[in-house]
Amino acid sequence: MRAARLHEYTDDMAQGLTIDEIDKPQVTRSDGVVVAVEGAGWCQTDNHIIEGMWEQYVPQPLPMTLGHENAGTVVETGDEVGLVDEGDQVICHPVQTCGTCRPCRQGETMYCENDAFNGLTTDGGFADELLTSERAVIPLPDGVDPADIAPHADAGITAYHAAKKAVNGLNPGDAAVVIGIGGLGHIGLQCLNEMSAADLIAVDIKESARQLADDLGAHYTVDPQSEDIADAVADITDDVGAAQVLDFVGADETTALAPDLCAAGGDHHIIGYGGHIHEPAQALVNGEFAFQGNIVGRYAELQELVALVEREAVDLHTTRYGLDAVNEVAEKLEHGEIDGRAVITP
Amino acid sequence: MRAARLHEYTDDMAQGLTIDEIDKPQVTRSDGVVVAVEGAGWCQTDNHIIEGMWEQYVPQPLPMTLGHENAGTVVETGDEVGLVDEGDQVICHPVQTCGTCRPCRQGETMYCENDAFNGLTTDGGFADELLTSERAVIPLPDGVDPADIAPHADAGITAYHAAKKAVNGLNPGDAAVVIGIGGLGHIGLQCLNEMSAADLIAVDIKESARQLADDLGAHYTVDPQSEDIADAVADITDDVGAAQVLDFVGADETTALAPDLCAAGGDHHIIGYGGHIHEPAQALVNGEFAFQGNIVGRYAELQELVALVEREAVDLHTTRYGLDAVNEVAEKLEHGEIDGRAVITP
Amino acid sequence: MRAARLHEYTDDMAQGLTIDEIDKPQVTRSDGVVVAVEGAGWCQTDNHIIEGMWEQYVPQPLPMTLGHENAGTVVETGDEVGLVDEGDQVICHPVQTCGTCRPCRQGETMYCENDAFNGLTTDGGFADELLTSERAVIPLPDGVDPADIAPHADAGITAYHAAKKAVNGLNPGDAAVVIGIGGLGHIGLQCLNEMSAADLIAVDIKESARQLADDLGAHYTVDPQSEDIADAVADITDDVGAAQVLDFVGADETTALAPDLCAAGGDHHIIGYGGHIHEPAQALVNGEFAFQGNIVGRYAELQELVALVEREAVDLHTTRYGLDAVNEVAEKLEHGEIDGRAVITP
Amino acid sequence: MRAARLHEYTDDMAQGLTIDEIDKPQVTRSDGVVVAVEGAGWCQTDNHIIEGMWEQYVPQPLPMTLGHENAGTVVETGDEVGLVDEGDQVICHPVQTCGTCRPCRQGETMYCENDAFNGLTTDGGFADELLTSERAVIPLPDGVDPADIAPHADAGITAYHAAKKAVNGLNPGDAAVVIGIGGLGHIGLQCLNEMSAADLIAVDIKESARQLADDLGAHYTVDPQSEDIADAVADITDDVGAAQVLDFVGADETTALAPDLCAAGGDHHIIGYGGHIHEPAQALVNGEFAFQGNIVGRYAELQELVALVEREAVDLHTTRYGLDAVNEVAEKLEHGEIDGRAVITP
Repeated sequence: MRAARLHEYTDDMAQGLTIDEIDKPQVTRSDGVVVAVEGAGWCQTDNHIIEGMWEQYVPQPLPMTLGHENAGTVVETGDEVGLVDEGDQVICHPVQTCGTCRPCRQGETMYCENDAFNGLTTDGGFADELLTSERAVIPLPDGVDPADIAPHADAGITAYHAAKKAVNGLNPGDAAVVIGIGGLGHIGLQCLNEMSAADLIAVDIKESARQLADDLGAHYTVDPQSEDIADAVADITDDVGAAQVLDFVGADETTALAPDLCAAGGDHHIIGYGGHIHEPAQALVNGEFAFQGNIVGRYAELQELVALVEREAVDLHTTRYGLDAVNEVAEKLEHGEIDGRAVITP
Repeated sequence: MRAARLHEYTDDMAQGLTIDEIDKPQVTRSDGVVVAVEGAGWCQTDNHIIEGMWEQYVPQPLPMTLGHENAGTVVETGDEVGLVDEGDQVICHPVQTCGTCRPCRQGETMYCENDAFNGLTTDGGFADELLTSERAVIPLPDGVDPADIAPHADAGITAYHAAKKAVNGLNPGDAAVVIGIGGLGHIGLQCLNEMSAADLIAVDIKESARQLADDLGAHYTVDPQSEDIADAVADITDDVGAAQVLDFVGADETTALAPDLCAAGGDHHIIGYGGHIHEPAQALVNGEFAFQGNIVGRYAELQELVALVEREAVDLHTTRYGLDAVNEVAEKLEHGEIDGRAVITP
Repeated sequence: MRAARLHEYTDDMAQGLTIDEIDKPQVTRSDGVVVAVEGAGWCQTDNHIIEGMWEQYVPQPLPMTLGHENAGTVVETGDEVGLVDEGDQVICHPVQTCGTCRPCRQGETMYCENDAFNGLTTDGGFADELLTSERAVIPLPDGVDPADIAPHADAGITAYHAAKKAVNGLNPGDAAVVIGIGGLGHIGLQCLNEMSAADLIAVDIKESARQLADDLGAHYTVDPQSEDIADAVADITDDVGAAQVLDFVGADETTALAPDLCAAGGDHHIIGYGGHIHEPAQALVNGEFAFQGNIVGRYAELQELVALVEREAVDLHTTRYGLDAVNEVAEKLEHGEIDGRAVITP
Repeated sequence: MRAARLHEYTDDMAQGLTIDEIDKPQVTRSDGVVVAVEGAGWCQTDNHIIEGMWEQYVPQPLPMTLGHENAGTVVETGDEVGLVDEGDQVICHPVQTCGTCRPCRQGETMYCENDAFNGLTTDGGFADELLTSERAVIPLPDGVDPADIAPHADAGITAYHAAKKAVNGLNPGDAAVVIGIGGLGHIGLQCLNEMSAADLIAVDIKESARQLADDLGAHYTVDPQSEDIADAVADITDDVGAAQVLDFVGADETTALAPDLCAAGGDHHIIGYGGHIHEPAQALVNGEFAFQGNIVGRYAELQELVALVEREAVDLHTTRYGLDAVNEVAEKLEHGEIDGRAVITP
């Protein structure tokens, strides 16, 4: 079968991956599941992986097929699989978990001590078929096209996961700031809107992104090029600040906003990454805010997101590309030329 | 009356405060309370205030009497005060709150929108008498000496407040790391021990501090000069890391430990300050940990701490000094020569 | 001034209250506030008070002016009141709190140890003027008519309070059952819809009530006369049950539904009352559900509800009556002839 | 092998079970685990099962081997088991879970939709060997005797589970009431003591039980035969009531105490069963307390309890009996003649 694989780290997105012909994956364990991939979202993290930015954090055996946002149709199952049958359409949580370590027992599947992460630590879904396991697949509701929903497997649940945490700190009348209305941010905004009665303030330098935020339910939009973000938030909140800030950018400039944006006791959620936090400890003491890290959501959270999709509460803007276009997509994303989410359809 | 007052910011602790003769405070509102100060703890924050380190965060009308850890005997009350009478012994929460803003309504008295902070934004307790209000005093249980308990008014509840937050994330079998077993840290350690069944790992460069930690219930002590802290914690926790880290130092070196110490989903609590956080956003994403700021505890938390003191669950080591010794105390603290907590007895 | 007062308990609603001429209330404390009542909601609890059903729970000095859902215009303030001025329009939380007991410090204003409850333990708002205090009034947003919002002072926050607790246990894809779409239930339903992404199942024997539920966002309605409630909920939830049940009726028949309706770990919220719970302890063990009592919401929750009203998220159906009509209203309510909420306009 | 089995429901404990000779269990799935039973605790629920009290709640194929509190040594494992090897000593969580249903994903293993419960819905451990699965065993720390720890598999985690929930509602200075200091209650008391700084009030009619409570850390003991429980709790708590009540009896008389014992907003935990709740809905509204059902604890909670045992924080009083003595034990328990916990050693 054909697979888009990373052979060595590079900053040149034009030749990040190569299309290889490799053997189809085989089920080797009782809980194995092979999925014919119908959609595989391309993520900013794919660019970061190609650049080698994850090498110090996780083991990465190269060459490796990338692609962690996958959906498709089950084509083979291990002999003890009961959740799905051949022919079922599924979305694939990117993390294959053991089910027996303590974090798995607690439902904290993202902290699994024996995990494999599609396209990050093991072969992913930019290929005709993907080997995963029963604990990593979720059957799709009727009428949902796998290629449409695929990006929810990572972009979606990451945004949902952060939004769900934020919602715990949002009462009616409180404000939440969403920084960066891109692939993840526009999902996070919708989740906040669906699960809270907070006033939503969307921040983005692109007018089209602010317009999208407005369409998706933001109560206020802020253009950082024409007004000071902190001043705008202070005006909107009568100087109280935002109870929750969701930073889908994670640049030096956006993390530096925390002390000025956060209400006392608030959280500045780090979801996007690339930049650094540089902050005096005293600022955190004075404002009692937190920089809260956010990883991909849990399996159970992907179930909840699928429930939101089924009730049509979360729109996802996607554009489809063939497997041969992977490097083209990587370059476009680098230049900010992808609107919504690119989905590879192998 | 006599009062130790700050006239201008200085780095020279030897002449930070001057002893002035000023008028006694008078009750002007129906809820006013005047307390004859019997003990006023000296805090690292007093040094920071003298240095001007809080000028950018809060309004400070100089000259101002410092002292935010006060206890003593009520000598005058406003005409609608019902909680205390003249002659009652009380500990004074450092923050005088309005009781009518939204944070006060929520019990978040530290976020009061109309607060006055003894010795930080209004006259404090390094003086014969202190003017405060009914909403800021707590009657003492019988048999408790005000001069013994005074430091709990800030050092105590700050440590308690952070420990209480940490306890929410601590199951039996989890580990908590306490960095810095000084004035606050040794209280925090005892609170953790009393309210959780976590394994407590105390870190301090001073042998006497590690010995104190050992006496107060730490399960492990680590000397950063003889072993790597992260390695030690990894060994103790079977590479899981600590669910909660309480950083009572807040230096660049200690905040930098967070990604290596924190278990997935854990918190690195910032309580001490002076240094900075410098961390890639990606580290917070990868480990899903938080840098959690911590301010002084709420009024209701001081009630809870008094309950802990009443059941003899929290030892506090104090040494007493006269009002004339304030600058001497400031210098000694600067040089790490204060064991436990210095208490001024005006 | 004129006031509708209870002189003795009776089951005869036709002569429950009498219209007396009494002195206007005067401010006697620094935080006192007198409000000219423009709207005072009539509540099922008013009928219960007249029947003597609260006599065993709280002290009730008769004669007493009833009316605990009040809104109007401030006409006099004590000399230390800062939150409102004469002429301001306000909604009155029914409970006047001390601000200094431990529950008040914790924000649990409903548990105030020194409270007075308008129309339940002290004179209420079925009168030209009401004496209350600064800690019990909330300024209204511009453009809100006091007579329209008055019932939120009790019906509204009671429903909001229960809904807010329920929302903590509702993930997308979970189901919530609302039993009784009357004065409180139709508000609770809207709050659940605004603050969660749960599937809402409304149960009522009246077709008009089910129609209202449908209009207000219920995803399913159930008529207990034509289908078994437990069967209907099992069908809708694939035999999982409802994560949260809000029982605005509180009759023997509705509390008996709990073991069959509640999902494992769920809650059956008791908001309406009048009936009893009769249940084997084993049923609670087997299903690990709770019967959760619910009282009126806190002051801070009324602020949050006012924020919901301001964003037009909660519709309230009211009909206005003059002060002379109080007994007529009581009788109509007894016979189920009040649609939405009756508001007395003294 | 020999197994103590229930053939038909009976109220005659003298002939509840019969000792049968049956085939040894075999591993049939990849995750199967066979344990040679070294200790199997006898529980009040075993008596209830024999009486047929669980027939209406769960499917029970008779004849069935009872015994749900098991520990021993692994003698056979399925070919994909990684957590344990033959020869390992383990404690067996009573519930074998699927790991793939939504509750399992959330860590709520007690709500598994495909579970088998040892000795309740499938063969248990009053036998030489027990067939269970990898997701239901926990390796024991070195030096722990399986026969000593076995009762923690149900009695222990049930008490721990309720105590852990209660701890969330207990601040220093709050009171908790423990009703019934028997097999479960004496464990619950120790867990509360280890994980909170609450004042613990132990209630039992037996003097030996009150003495045990006193030895295990209760701050107060109450004898219901010599004083009114509600009066005693009111005295101890200055009329505030207990924030949490743990009812390990679950009789009509003990559930009826709830409105008088619970502080506002408190919980009356139902752990023991046999009796009923009879309570006006109005009582729950007025006191805003809950009757909170409690089932056996989760797998992860048994891990936490094993951690408590390892740090010697929880004493368990056991007496050992041979397999032939099962009916004798059942009778003794019926007559209140078992001190601590009886453990069958097949």
